Amino acid sequence: MAPGAPARDQTALARLAVNTIRFLAADAVEKARSGHPGMPMGMADVAFVLWTRFLRYQPQDPQWPDRDRFVLSAGHGSMLLYSLLHLAGYDLSLGDLMRFRQLGSRTPGHPEHGLTPGVETTTGPLGQGFGNGVGMALATRMLAARVNSPDFAPVGHRVFGIVSDGDLMEGVASEAASLAGHWGLGNLIYIYDDNHITIEGDTALAFSEDVGRRFDAYGWQVLKADPYDHAALEHALEQAVADTTRPSLVITRSHIGYGAPHKQDTREAHGEPLGTEEIAAAKRALGWPEIPTFTIPDDVRALFAQRAVDVRPEYDAWHRGLKAWMARDPERGRVWLDHVEKRVPADIMERLLAEAPTEAGATRVHGGAVLQRAAALIPALVGGSADLEPSTKTRLPGASVQRGTYGGRNLHFGVREHAMGTILNGLALHGSFIPYGSSFLVFTDYARPAIRLCALMEQQVVWVLTHDSVFLGEDGPTHQPIEHLGSLRAIPGLLVVRPADGPETAGAWALALERRTAPTLLALTRQSVPALERPTALTSADVRRGAYLLRAAAGSDPVTIIATGSEVWVALGVARELEARGRAVRVVSAPAPQLLLACPKTEVEALLGPQHRRVTLEAGATDYWLRFTGDRGLAIGIDRFGASAPHTALQGHFGLTPERVAARIREWLG
Amino acid sequence: MAPGAPARDQTALARLAVNTIRFLAADAVEKARSGHPGMPMGMADVAFVLWTRFLRYQPQDPQWPDRDRFVLSAGHGSMLLYSLLHLAGYDLSLGDLMRFRQLGSRTPGHPEHGLTPGVETTTGPLGQGFGNGVGMALATRMLAARVNSPDFAPVGHRVFGIVSDGDLMEGVASEAASLAGHWGLGNLIYIYDDNHITIEGDTALAFSEDVGRRFDAYGWQVLKADPYDHAALEHALEQAVADTTRPSLVITRSHIGYGAPHKQDTREAHGEPLGTEEIAAAKRALGWPEIPTFTIPDDVRALFAQRAVDVRPEYDAWHRGLKAWMARDPERGRVWLDHVEKRVPADIMERLLAEAPTEAGATRVHGGAVLQRAAALIPALVGGSADLEPSTKTRLPGASVQRGTYGGRNLHFGVREHAMGTILNGLALHGSFIPYGSSFLVFTDYARPAIRLCALMEQQVVWVLTHDSVFLGEDGPTHQPIEHLGSLRAIPGLLVVRPADGPETAGAWALALERRTAPTLLALTRQSVPALERPTALTSADVRRGAYLLRAAAGSDPVTIIATGSEVWVALGVARELEARGRAVRVVSAPAPQLLLACPKTEVEALLGPQHRRVTLEAGATDYWLRFTGDRGLAIGIDRFGASAPHTALQGHFGLTPERVAARIREWLG
Repeated sequence: MAPGAPARDQTALARLAVNTIRFLAADAVEKARSGHPGMPMGMADVAFVLWTRFLRYQPQDPQWPDRDRFVLSAGHGSMLLYSLLHLAGYDLSLGDLMRFRQLGSRTPGHPEHGLTPGVETTTGPLGQGFGNGVGMALATRMLAARVNSPDFAPVGHRVFGIVSDGDLMEGVASEAASLAGHWGLGNLIYIYDDNHITIEGDTALAFSEDVGRRFDAYGWQVLKADPYDHAALEHALEQAVADTTRPSLVITRSHIGYGAPHKQDTREAHGEPLGTEEIAAAKRALGWPEIPTFTIPDDVRALFAQRAVDVRPEYDAWHRGLKAWMARDPERGRVWLDHVEKRVPADIMERLLAEAPTEAGATRVHGGAVLQRAAALIPALVGGSADLEPSTKTRLPGASVQRGTYGGRNLHFGVREHAMGTILNGLALHGSFIPYGSSFLVFTDYARPAIRLCALMEQQVVWVLTHDSVFLGEDGPTHQPIEHLGSLRAIPGLLVVRPADGPETAGAWALALERRTAPTLLALTRQSVPALERPTALTSADVRRGAYLLRAAAGSDPVTIIATGSEVWVALGVARELEARGRAVRVVSAPAPQLLLACPKTEVEALLGPQHRRVTLEAGATDYWLRFTGDRGLAIGIDRFGASAPHTALQGHFGLTPERVAARIREWLG
Repeated sequence: MAPGAPARDQTALARLAVNTIRFLAADAVEKARSGHPGMPMGMADVAFVLWTRFLRYQPQDPQWPDRDRFVLSAGHGSMLLYSLLHLAGYDLSLGDLMRFRQLGSRTPGHPEHGLTPGVETTTGPLGQGFGNGVGMALATRMLAARVNSPDFAPVGHRVFGIVSDGDLMEGVASEAASLAGHWGLGNLIYIYDDNHITIEGDTALAFSEDVGRRFDAYGWQVLKADPYDHAALEHALEQAVADTTRPSLVITRSHIGYGAPHKQDTREAHGEPLGTEEIAAAKRALGWPEIPTFTIPDDVRALFAQRAVDVRPEYDAWHRGLKAWMARDPERGRVWLDHVEKRVPADIMERLLAEAPTEAGATRVHGGAVLQRAAALIPALVGGSADLEPSTKTRLPGASVQRGTYGGRNLHFGVREHAMGTILNGLALHGSFIPYGSSFLVFTDYARPAIRLCALMEQQVVWVLTHDSVFLGEDGPTHQPIEHLGSLRAIPGLLVVRPADGPETAGAWALALERRTAPTLLALTRQSVPALERPTALTSADVRRGAYLLRAAAGSDPVTIIATGSEVWVALGVARELEARGRAVRVVSAPAPQLLLACPKTEVEALLGPQHRRVTLEAGATDYWLRFTGDRGLAIGIDRFGASAPHTALQGHFGLTPERVAARIREWLG
C-alpha cells in the first residue's frame, strides 16, 4: 500500500477521526522527542472502529465492573491509547498528551495501570498484556458463572486487545494462547497488528511461521481483515464477538507509520520521532493541517462523545438491574460483593493464627491446610498450579475450571509458569478475584517478568512456592533455589515470607491476604520440619513485624541467630549446643525480614542485638543478609549451586546441621 | 494399550534390550527411593531404536566432534539416559547407576553436563533442552558452512532429542521451535513422548491444542509413529533424517510406566518409585526376572557394543580424513581449529585495551566498537540480538544467518529472549562457538532460567545488556532495571561487568573472552557518559581485580566512593564538590565487584578504605553493596521502581546528580 493511499469504506468523518488519532500520536512523540509513532499511525483505523463501534465503556466511570476491557499489549504504542482515552472523554487532558514521557505526567512511555484512568494493565515488556487479557477473560467467565442469573446477568463484558509481532514471538503469549484456547474463552478478541516490521527490520528476518495456523492449532477462531477497510473490520469483529466458544485472533496486515511518505513500512517509524519534515509531509499526504499540532476537529470530538452517550442507557440499565437483583436475591448479591470487593475478613490474621497447624510437617503441607481455611473465608480466593499441585498442596475443594464450566476455583495452568503469572495478574486486574499460583521456588525464574509487573501494578497476587531450598533433595541443582529468595526480595514491593512451622505459615498466608495492593510470595519447604516450641503463641504483631524473638538467651552477651523457614529449628539446636558450652544464644525467627526493615531502627536493634553478635542462617545466598550482619556479623548460607542427594546428606554437605553451624559460630567467635 | 501388551515388530533380542533399559531405570529409582520411572519405561523402545540404529557415537571418545548429539529435554527421565550411556559403553558403571541420586555420584537426579560423560546438556527445567538442541543444530550448520569442503566434510552430525508434554507447554520451546523452523534446521529431530500424563493428571486438564498442527505452522516436518513398533519408528526416523531442510517432530503416543500393571498411564508412574510389588508385577508381566535387580543380559550388552563397532569405521575414516584434509588445506584447517578450540588470543586483554575507545559516548557504543575488534581476532565469536541490535550495537560485519545460508556471524532471534538464552547455551555446548546475545538489561528477566543453567554448566556465553539503568529514560519503569544487577550477581558463577567508559568496556569484553568456563554479562549504558580522566592507562591487572583506584584523595581521612558504570563520572563530580569543601575523597571504579571479593581481604581493605568512610554508588538496588558498606558505610542507589522521563530529569528525581550525592554524603558524615 502506498503511503497515505485512500482507505476503503470510510466516511469522511471516520477519515477525520483516524487522522486525528494518527497525528495526536505523531505530534506527541515529536514533542517528547522520544516514542513510537508508527504503531498508532498504522492501527488508528482499527482502534477507531473498535472504540466507537464495539467497546462498551463510560469514561466518567472507568471502574464500571461490566465495562469491556481493552488491552494494548503492544505497550510501546502508548500514544494510541492515550489519544483514544482523551478523545473518548476519560480524565486525560490534551495537556497530559502534550506532557508525554515527561517526569510526573500521566502519559508515561508505556501505559501504567493505576496512573492513568482507563489503562487496564501496564504493558511494554512484550507478551505480558497478551497474558493479562487471557486472565481478564477468564475472570469474566468465572465471575459470570458465580453470579449471572436467569433474571439478571451482571457480567456480560468482553476483552479486546491489540497485539504485535513481538507479542506473538514471546513464549509467554504462546503459553497463554494455548490456555485461552483450552479454556474456550470466546469473550477474548485480539487484533494482530501484522505490520511486518520489527526493530531489526522486516519480520521475515526471524519470524516466518504461519501465525494463523498456529492459533488455529490452539483452538482459536482466526480471521483476517484489511485494517483500512472499516466495513471489513467491523464484519470481522462481529464474527469474533459472535463466536462465544473460541477466542478470536483478527489478523490485520497493517502499515507501520501509515501515511509517512518516506518512513511508512520501515523500522525507522517504529521507535523514534518521525522528524518535523516527515510529519509535515505525512500531514500533507493525508490532507491534514500542518499546524497547529495536536489538532482535534470538533466533529471528531462529537463523534467519540457519542459513543459514551450510546452506551449510557445500557450502563444505567445495568445499575438499575444490579440494584433490583441484589434486593431480590441477597444471597447472590453477597456473592457479587464478595468478589467485586475482594472481601477479606478484617480479622483474617487472628482467625488463621487461631486455627494454625501445630504439628510437625512440611510447611507446604501446612500451607495447604491454611489455604483451605482461608478459602472457606474468602470466596474471591482462587488459584492453581503450573502442573505441580500434588506437590505444592494447593488444591481447593470442588471442581476445576475447564472449558464451559467456570464455576470452580481450581486452575490448571500446565507447565507454563510464565503464562500463569500473567494470567494471575489479569485475574487480579479484572477486579473480582484474589488469585494464587503455585510452583517450585526455583521456577519463579520462568515467571519473573510477570512477578515484577505485578509488583509495579500493585496487585494482590499470592505466589505459593514450595521446594524452597537445596533440602528438596534428590532433584538436584537444576531444581534447588540458591539466589532466589534474595533476588525476589529485591523486587520493589514484593514481599517474600518464609515461615518456619504451622503457625508461621498461617501468619504468612494472613500477611498475603492483608496486603491488598501488593503481591506476596510464600516460600515453603518440601521436607518436614519440627513444630517449634514457643513460650507463648505466635501473635499477629510478631507476624506483622516480620521477625520476633523465639528463644531468649540464658546468659549475658548472647549471640543472636536470625533464621528463616527450615533453618529456624536448626538455630534452636545450635542454641542448645552453644549454651551447653557456656555461650548464651538468642534465636530470632524472621519469616519476613523485609517487614522488619520498615520498623524503627531502635526496635530492629533491640530485636537483633549488636551486629558483632549477629548470625544469620538461611539455606540460600547470603547476599540479602549482609545488611544485618555488616562486616562484623556472620552470614551463614549457601553461595554455590546445590547437589543431588537425600536432604539429610545435603545438610552435612552444606554444613547446615546444628553441630556444623555451632562449630562455625564457635570458630567465628574465636 | 494394556500394560505390558506385546509390542509389534520387535525381535526377541530387541525386546530383551528394551526391557533391560526399562528395569534398570525402575530398579535405580526404587533403590534411590526417589525419581521418575515412568518416562524411561514408556520410552525405552524409542531410545533403543534411536541409540542402536541411528545415533552415531563412540563411547570411548565422548567429545568426538562429529558425533550426533542426543538431548534428553525431559531431564526427569535421567535414568533412561544413564541406562543408555552404561549400555552403550560410556564410562558410567553399573555401580554409578546404583548410586542414582546420591551425594557425589555421577548419576544425579537430572542429567548434568560436565559431570557424566555423554551428557550433552543439563536438563530438568522444562523447555531448556529443547532450545539447547536448536542451538546445537544451528551450530552444526554454521560450522559446516565454514569448513565443509568438496573433498572432505568434517561436519555431518545431527541432533536427536526426546521432548515431553511439559517441554512443549513451556513458552521457551515455542520460541525455539519457531526459530528452528525459520532457520530450516533439517538436522534436528525431536521425538515427542506424547504420554498424555502430567503431574496433575491427564494432559487434557491443561493441554488440548493440536501440537502437530502447531509445529507444522512453525515449518517443521511432523510425523507420527507407534513407539512400540520398532519398524514403524525406524521408518519415521528415516523420514526425519531424510528431510534436511526442515526440523522434524516425531509424535509417539506412548504409555508412561509401560508394563506396570497398576501404574501404567497414571500420574503415579511419573515422579515416584513404583514400589516393590508393582515392580515385581511389571517384571512378571514383561517376562523379566524379578531378581537380581539391575539385570543386564549378555546378549543385550553385546547388541549395544555392536553399535560402537558399527560406527567405528566411520569414526576412523573421519579422523584419517580430517588429518589429510588439514594437511592439504591448512587454511581451512586453521578455521577448523579456530572453532573447535574456540581460540582466543592469549593477549586478548592487552590487545583490546590498547585499542580501546577513548572518546565520550554511551558504553553500548563503546561495546559495539570493542566487539568489532574482538570479532576480528576471534573467528568463533558469533551472536545476535533479541530484536534490539540497532540499540545494542552488536552487529558484526557480513551476512546474517538465515535458512540455507549459515556462513554469517549475525543471528536474529526475534523478540525471544528466552529462546536466545537456550540457543546461546546450545551453541556453546556444541563446542565450536563463543556466542553472545544482546537485549536490554531488564529483559534478562525473560531469560533467567537459561542464564542460570549456563552458569551451572560452566559455558562461555557473553550477554550484552544495554539500557542498564533508569537512565535509559523515557521508556519508563517497565524498561528500567532496578534489582537486576544485584540479582544477576547473585547467580553463582555468573560475572556481571558494568564498565564506566571506553577502556573499561574493552576490559569488560576481554574479561568475558578470557573466562573460558563461565558466562559473563556486560551491563552497558544507553546514555552517553564522559571519557574518564585517568592518571595512567587502565591496566589488565586493574581489570582483572574488578576494581581499581581511579582518583586518589587530596587530603587525610578520605571518603572512598565506590561506583560502577555511569555513576563513576558522578563520583568524580562528587569528589570535586566535596574536596572544594575540605573533605578528601578517593574514587574507586568497580566494574566487576564480584572479582574484588575473590581478592585477599587486605587488598580489598587497602583499596576500599575503612568501612565507616565508604560510600557505594550505583543506579540500582543497594542490596548488593551492603557487603561493602556494612552498618557504618553508606550505600546510595535506587530501591524503588523507575519513572518515565528524559534521563537528565531522572538524575535529579532519583538524587543521583553530583550535587545531590555530595549533599547526601555530607549529611551522612554529619
